[in-house]
Amino acid sequence: MQVQVISTVNEACSANFHHKTAIVIDVLRATSTIVAALSNGATSVIPAETVMDARALHRAGDTLGGERFCRKIAGFELGNSPYEYSEENVGGRRIILTTTNGTRAIHKSMRADHIIAGALLNAEACARYALELRRDVVILCAGSHDDFAIEDGLCAGLILDCLRKLSAAPVEADDFGKAMNSLYRDRQSSILDTLTSSQSGKRLLKLGYKEDIEACSRVNSIALTPYLNGDQLIAR
Amino acid sequence: MQVQVISTVNEACSANFHHKTAIVIDVLRATSTIVAALSNGATSVIPAETVMDARALHRAGDTLGGERFCRKIAGFELGNSPYEYSEENVGGRRIILTTTNGTRAIHKSMRADHIIAGALLNAEACARYALELRRDVVILCAGSHDDFAIEDGLCAGLILDCLRKLSAAPVEADDFGKAMNSLYRDRQSSILDTLTSSQSGKRLLKLGYKEDIEACSRVNSIALTPYLNGDQLIAR
Repeated sequence: MQVQVISTVNEACSANFHHKTAIVIDVLRATSTIVAALSNGATSVIPAETVMDARALHRAGDTLGGERFCRKIAGFELGNSPYEYSEENVGGRRIILTTTNGTRAIHKSMRADHIIAGALLNAEACARYALELRRDVVILCAGSHDDFAIEDGLCAGLILDCLRKLSAAPVEADDFGKAMNSLYRDRQSSILDTLTSSQSGKRLLKLGYKEDIEACSRVNSIALTPYLNGDQLIAR
Repeated sequence: MQVQVISTVNEACSANFHHKTAIVIDVLRATSTIVAALSNGATSVIPAETVMDARALHRAGDTLGGERFCRKIAGFELGNSPYEYSEENVGGRRIILTTTNGTRAIHKSMRADHIIAGALLNAEACARYALELRRDVVILCAGSHDDFAIEDGLCAGLILDCLRKLSAAPVEADDFGKAMNSLYRDRQSSILDTLTSSQSGKRLLKLGYKEDIEACSRVNSIALTPYLNGDQLIAR
């Protein structure tokens, strides 16, 4: 299996995704929130690129969630904090979610044969499911605005580690993938610290979202893979 | 001191360089060759973007060097192998050098207050000189074509390590710099292996340049910093 890792959404072009399984990562916080929502009983999550798209997709019974500048959007029920997506808030409901980078990254991957959402929370489940899908893999780190985000790279490196442990066949990574794998190996005993001291982590801390960072740092705590089926992410 | 690390030439824009010291890295092989040339007595190295520019800059007594597709350019005296730049070949001579990515990266950094060329060979010397220059630092990894090259990231991580060891004041890196520092820490005992198994390394091996990879992997073996003075790199 070949694995390519892309550092930010801006670096991705549609040719990267042909005949591949795409794993989209936005650890702080979109993909962590999607994993939390589905594990707490949301029936599906629809990623919307813009606030207007999200409002247009909304039907009676749906829940609108998302952020701009890390804050909940005016008129939306939920923001982008994993712990807001509790069983009480999302059980049995369809979620329309729009975030600055994460949902954009999912839309950027549309040419892939399969799209799944990865986070530290479900890295091993992602790797397991990607192996079942029997395609080469491209891991897209959403990043923060146009910049590389270390927490996404760390997660890419962890998923590579899981793929290598679980795969009977060799797993070959490109140079950037190898670098992210080294990043994970060097930092695996200081995951929470890496998230807290990252650019995105510092921004969230300043805005009072310390609990979100902790909630997003729990490696392999949820054995579920969000899978894009049509326009909806569902649990696999 | 703030340190920003840029993953490839394409990611760099001139705003990154204002009031900064730029350290340009192309381990395989341009900056390693420049370091070798100056340490073997070349009076200066002029980086030229194109083959035509290189020919136009050439005066009697100069030596033309460089590569396209890893091979020596027709009519040029030297290619891009560090060991070609021996005392016998370059002592007392001015070198005009054009390479696919390395010289382009130097030209991309022109807005910086100071530009120096870094390689594994002179990482510590680079860090020492950058500290003397008392500016924030931007490390530009040239990369290979448009892709990240792991050997350049490894060298950026090593230079960050040296800056931290040598600096009395704190050295703050951006997320990508931190990731490259982890890459170096994870791979510091397998430098040659990392170079040999990199995308660029595999390409060079296939073309018969195994000795070049070894020559470029000798960490801190040369205590010299190529510094851009006008249009010429001279030894500091």
